[in-house]
Amino acid sequence: MKTLLQQINSPTDLKKLSMQELEQLTTEIRTQMLTRLSVTGGHVGSNLGMIETTTALHYVFNSPVDKFVFDVSHQCYTHKLLTGRKEAYTDPKQYDKVTGFTNPLESEHDLFAVGHTSTAISLACGLAKARNLQKANYQIIAVTGDGALSGGLAFEGLNNAATLHGPLMIVINDNQMSIAENHGGIYQNLQLLRNTQGKAECNLFKAMGFDYYFVQDGHNLNELIDVFSKVKQISHPVIVHVCTTKGKGYLFAEEEKEKWHYMAPFHQENGLTLAKPNTYETYENLTRDYLIAKMKKDKSIVAITAGTPKIFGFDKKLRDEFPEQFVDVGIAEGHAVSFVSGIAKNGGKPVFGVSSSFLQRAYDQLSHDLALNKSPAVILVYFSGISSGNQTHMGIFDIPLTMNIPNLTCLAPSCKEEYLDMLEWALEQTDGPVIIRVPGIQTLSRKVELLTDYSNQVKYETVISGNQVAILALGNFYQLGKDVQAYLNKAYNIEASLINPRYITGYDKVTLEKLKENHQLVVTLENGQIDGGFGEKIARYYGTSQMKVLNLGAEKAFIDNLSVQTQYQRFHLTVPQIAENILKVLQGLD
Amino acid sequence: MKTLLQQINSPTDLKKLSMQELEQLTTEIRTQMLTRLSVTGGHVGSNLGMIETTTALHYVFNSPVDKFVFDVSHQCYTHKLLTGRKEAYTDPKQYDKVTGFTNPLESEHDLFAVGHTSTAISLACGLAKARNLQKANYQIIAVTGDGALSGGLAFEGLNNAATLHGPLMIVINDNQMSIAENHGGIYQNLQLLRNTQGKAECNLFKAMGFDYYFVQDGHNLNELIDVFSKVKQISHPVIVHVCTTKGKGYLFAEEEKEKWHYMAPFHQENGLTLAKPNTYETYENLTRDYLIAKMKKDKSIVAITAGTPKIFGFDKKLRDEFPEQFVDVGIAEGHAVSFVSGIAKNGGKPVFGVSSSFLQRAYDQLSHDLALNKSPAVILVYFSGISSGNQTHMGIFDIPLTMNIPNLTCLAPSCKEEYLDMLEWALEQTDGPVIIRVPGIQTLSRKVELLTDYSNQVKYETVISGNQVAILALGNFYQLGKDVQAYLNKAYNIEASLINPRYITGYDKVTLEKLKENHQLVVTLENGQIDGGFGEKIARYYGTSQMKVLNLGAEKAFIDNLSVQTQYQRFHLTVPQIAENILKVLQGLD
Repeated sequence: MKTLLQQINSPTDLKKLSMQELEQLTTEIRTQMLTRLSVTGGHVGSNLGMIETTTALHYVFNSPVDKFVFDVSHQCYTHKLLTGRKEAYTDPKQYDKVTGFTNPLESEHDLFAVGHTSTAISLACGLAKARNLQKANYQIIAVTGDGALSGGLAFEGLNNAATLHGPLMIVINDNQMSIAENHGGIYQNLQLLRNTQGKAECNLFKAMGFDYYFVQDGHNLNELIDVFSKVKQISHPVIVHVCTTKGKGYLFAEEEKEKWHYMAPFHQENGLTLAKPNTYETYENLTRDYLIAKMKKDKSIVAITAGTPKIFGFDKKLRDEFPEQFVDVGIAEGHAVSFVSGIAKNGGKPVFGVSSSFLQRAYDQLSHDLALNKSPAVILVYFSGISSGNQTHMGIFDIPLTMNIPNLTCLAPSCKEEYLDMLEWALEQTDGPVIIRVPGIQTLSRKVELLTDYSNQVKYETVISGNQVAILALGNFYQLGKDVQAYLNKAYNIEASLINPRYITGYDKVTLEKLKENHQLVVTLENGQIDGGFGEKIARYYGTSQMKVLNLGAEKAFIDNLSVQTQYQRFHLTVPQIAENILKVLQGLD
Repeated sequence: MKTLLQQINSPTDLKKLSMQELEQLTTEIRTQMLTRLSVTGGHVGSNLGMIETTTALHYVFNSPVDKFVFDVSHQCYTHKLLTGRKEAYTDPKQYDKVTGFTNPLESEHDLFAVGHTSTAISLACGLAKARNLQKANYQIIAVTGDGALSGGLAFEGLNNAATLHGPLMIVINDNQMSIAENHGGIYQNLQLLRNTQGKAECNLFKAMGFDYYFVQDGHNLNELIDVFSKVKQISHPVIVHVCTTKGKGYLFAEEEKEKWHYMAPFHQENGLTLAKPNTYETYENLTRDYLIAKMKKDKSIVAITAGTPKIFGFDKKLRDEFPEQFVDVGIAEGHAVSFVSGIAKNGGKPVFGVSSSFLQRAYDQLSHDLALNKSPAVILVYFSGISSGNQTHMGIFDIPLTMNIPNLTCLAPSCKEEYLDMLEWALEQTDGPVIIRVPGIQTLSRKVELLTDYSNQVKYETVISGNQVAILALGNFYQLGKDVQAYLNKAYNIEASLINPRYITGYDKVTLEKLKENHQLVVTLENGQIDGGFGEKIARYYGTSQMKVLNLGAEKAFIDNLSVQTQYQRFHLTVPQIAENILKVLQGLD
C-alpha cells in the first residue's frame, strides 16, 4: 500500500488531504523521522515537536510563493519532508542527500542557510520589506523557538517587524526549552501566557506592538489550521504563540529533553545511544573536574555559559550543585561577554565556555566591554579548528576574530598539561582578559616545559632545535608539526626545528631573531583560517628580512559537511603535502 | 559669593544640601554645562536632559560603594560634575581634562570606558553577580536611554537581570528620542506607559519580570528622590522609567532635538553653530545625491540606517520624501545586516550606511546571514581610518573585521570617481555582498581608470610604473602613497611604483608577479590596523619569494583622543618616516 507521504512531492499535494489524512501523514512523518534519526543522529527534540505545526503551516500557506524562514533551522525536517525531499528521510541510501539545516542549494523552499539562533525574524523582515517595495502581498513566515528569544537579535527583529506593513507572521514555537532549560525574565511571561491561554493582559508581544494569537496545543492540527487560516486574512505583523512538546511522540525524548536536544545514533526501542562511550579523557571533563575543585575552594570563581552548559561538562546535577557559581544567561553570547567583564571588574573570577563558532556573536563586546576595559575574565573556546560539520558551525574563524583585538591575550595550549597551566594562571591573574583555545575533544598529554606565568614576555617553546627549516606548530597542530618534523628528517634528511608558540598574540622576538642565524624558512601551521590569523603575523614580522615564510592552515571559505581528511588534502595539510611544499620553497622552485 | 557647585567635591557633599539648594545646584550645573558645551561642543541634548535625574541618583545613593554604569555614556556630564571633576566644566583651562565618555582612568566613580549603545545593563548584571558572590549588598545602577532599547544587547541584559538576586536598578531615561526619532514596536509601549502614568497593564518591563516604577517628570527632584528612595529599600531588580526632555532648559535644543544630539561649538545666545560651513564637497552629500537620483528611478533601491540617518545625508525632510525607500531600524546594527540580506534575497537593492566602529556590532550577521548566503547587499563604511576621537569610536578595525570573512568583496576606492563607479556596480550586481570603504569626509577627485565591473578578476591600478620599490597605497591612503613616491624620487632619486589596489579582498596576481621582475620591496599603506589587515596578506603572498614586504598602518591599540598627526608620527606614517623606513630596508639595515 502506498503511504500518504509517498504522495507528497510538494506542499501543493498536502492541500488535497482530508483532516484525517493529515493526521495520518504526521504519524508517518514521525515514524520516518525517528527511524532516520536513530541511524544518522540529529536534532531530535525540536524536530519531533514541530511536525504538526509545520504540516499545518504548509497546508494553509503556499510555499515557495509564501516564504518561510526557520530560525537556526533545528526544526526544519518536516519542512524538508514536505518540500520535495522526503526520500532523504525514507530511503536510507539517500539519508546523506540533505543536511540537518535549511539550505537554498537543496530547494527553492529554503531561503537561507542558517545555523546560529535568533536571526529568523530579522531575515523575514528583509523579505517582507522587499515584497512591499514590489507591491506584492504574499505571506512571510518566521518560525522561531522560545529559546531563541534570549538572543538580542530576536528582539531587534521583533522591534522592527512590528513597524512593517503587509503580512508577516512570526510563529513562536514554545516548547519551554532552550538547548537546556530556559533562563531569563521573559520566560515568566511565556509561562503566564500559557497559564492564561494567551489571555493575560501583560503580554510581551503585545507590548512590542503585535497582534497576538495563541495555540494551546501545537500538536492539534485542527487548532493550528484554524489559527493559521485566520492569520492568513490579516495583512499586518502577527505573533502566533504555539505550545509544543519537545520530543513529542517519543517517550525517551519527551522525558529527558536536554539529553535529546541533539543525539548521536540510538536504539529506537530503548533510547540507548549507539555511540561508543569515550574511552579517552576529554577536555570537557578535564575542565569540569578542574572547575569543580577550584569552585569549591574559591567562591569568587563563576562559570558562565550562553545556553550550552555541557560544553564544559555542567550537566543538570552539577548546575544544581553550584547554583550561585554557575550561570546560564540563555543563548546570548554578547551579554555573556559583557556580563563576565562586569564580574571581573568587581572582583569575581569568571570563566566563559563557548564554541568557536558562537563566540563571533560577541565581537563588539569582546572589543569594548572586555578588551578596552582590560577586565580579567577568562574565555575558553571549544570546537575550534577544521571540522566536518555544517558550514554554520565552523571552528576556523576564532583566531582572526580574537587575535586582532587589542588587549586580548590569546593562548593556544599544545596539550593538557599546558592547558591546565594556562587556565590556572588565567583565572588568578588580574591584568586583563585571556582567551584559551581548548585544544580539541580528546586530551593529549606530553612532557612540556610549563611557564606558570604567561603575563611576562611572550616565550615560545623550542621543542626541537634544528636548522634550515623551523616549524611553528600552533596549539592543537602541535602533533602535525611534530609529524612533519619527523617526516622531513626521515625522507629528506632535514633536521627541522619544532616550535610550540604557546601564544597566539604577540611575538617571541628572541626566538624569531635567533632563527635567522641558521634557518632559511619558517613554516606556520595553524588549525584555523590563514587569513587574518597567526601565520600572517609571522610573514609580516619577517617581511623585511631574508627569512622565507610559508603559512599553512585553512582556506578562507565556508565549507559544508566535508570530512576533515578531505579538507586537509584540499588545504595541503597532510604530512607529505607539507613536506613537499617545504622542499619546493627550499629549492627556490616556488 | 561661593556657588553651591564649588562646594561639591564628591557625592557625599550633595547629601548636606536642602531641596532648595539641590534645585539651585541643578541650575548652576545647567549653566556651566551649556557654557562649556558652547565652547567645546559635545552631546548637548541627552546631557541637559539628565541633570536632575543624575543629581537625584547621587543624592540618594552612595557612589562609589553603590556602582553606576552609564549606557554609551552620552549623559555622563552631570555625573562627572558631581564626582570630583567639576573644574573640567567650570574652568575653561581645564575643559580638556576629561572626555565626554565615562573613563575609569579619570575617576573611581567611572566603572567602564564605553561608547557603544545598549551595553550598560549587561555590565551592571556582572557587577551585581560579583557582589552577590561576595555576599555584599550595595546597589548597582544602570542608566540607559529609550533609544538604546532598540539594541538587542539591552534585551539580553534585561532578560538576565530579571533573574538576578539583590539590588539592581535600571533607570530608563525616556526622552522619546534616539539620535534621531525612535523606530520600533517597543516605543508604542513606552508611549502607552507615559500616557497612563506607568499604570497600563501591558508593560514591557513587567512582562520581562521586573518590578516597575514610573517617574512622570524627570526634572522634578522631589519626585525623583522619592522614587529612588523607595527603590533603595528594595533588594531585587527594579526598572525606573523616567520621562525627561532631551535638551531640557535650552530652548533651541528642546525644539530641534535631532540637530542638538551632538553639536559643534555654538553661540549660546542664538544657537547658531560656530563651525564654519563646509566649503568642500563631502562623501555624505555625494552619496545622498547619488541615492536620491537612483531611488527615484528604481523603486527597489532601499537605504538603511541603524539609528544614524545623517551618515549618508538623510535628514528628516529627505526621510519623509522616501518613506518606503529609507528605513531606520533603530540602533540595531546586527538586525540591519540580516535585514538587508533578506531584502537582497527577495529582489531588493539595499544599501546600509554605517560607521566603521559600529559595523563590528554585526560580525555574526555579516558572516552568516549576509556572506554565507551571498546576498547582494551593499554596505557603505563611513568614518574609517585613523581619527582623533574617543577610543570607542575608532575607525581602524573595519578592514580586519570584514576582509577575513569569506564571500565578502571589500573595496577601497581612492577617490570620488572610483567610489561612485564601485557604488553603481555594487548596487546593480547580483553575485554577493559588497562592502565599500568610503574614503573620508572631503571628496578627492582625480583622473582614474575606472573598471565599471568589479566582479571580474582583481585588478590593481598601476598609477606610476617604476622599479625597485612598489607602494601599494590602499583607499584613502592613495594620496599618502603618492606623496611618498614623490618624496623618494626627489630626496633619494628612487623611481618607485605607485599602485592603487582598489580591492581589499583578493589578490591581483598578475600585478604582484610582475613586480617581482624589477622590484625588491613592496610597501603596503593602509589607513587601518595592520594586524589582520590588507598588508599582512601581501606579506604572506610574497613570504616564500625573494620580495621584501614592509607593512605600514595603525598599531593594534585602543587610542583615546589623540591627534591624527601624533598618531601618524607614532605609527611612522609621515612621509619622511616612511621614506626613511624604506631606505633602511633597501640598505639591508633592517
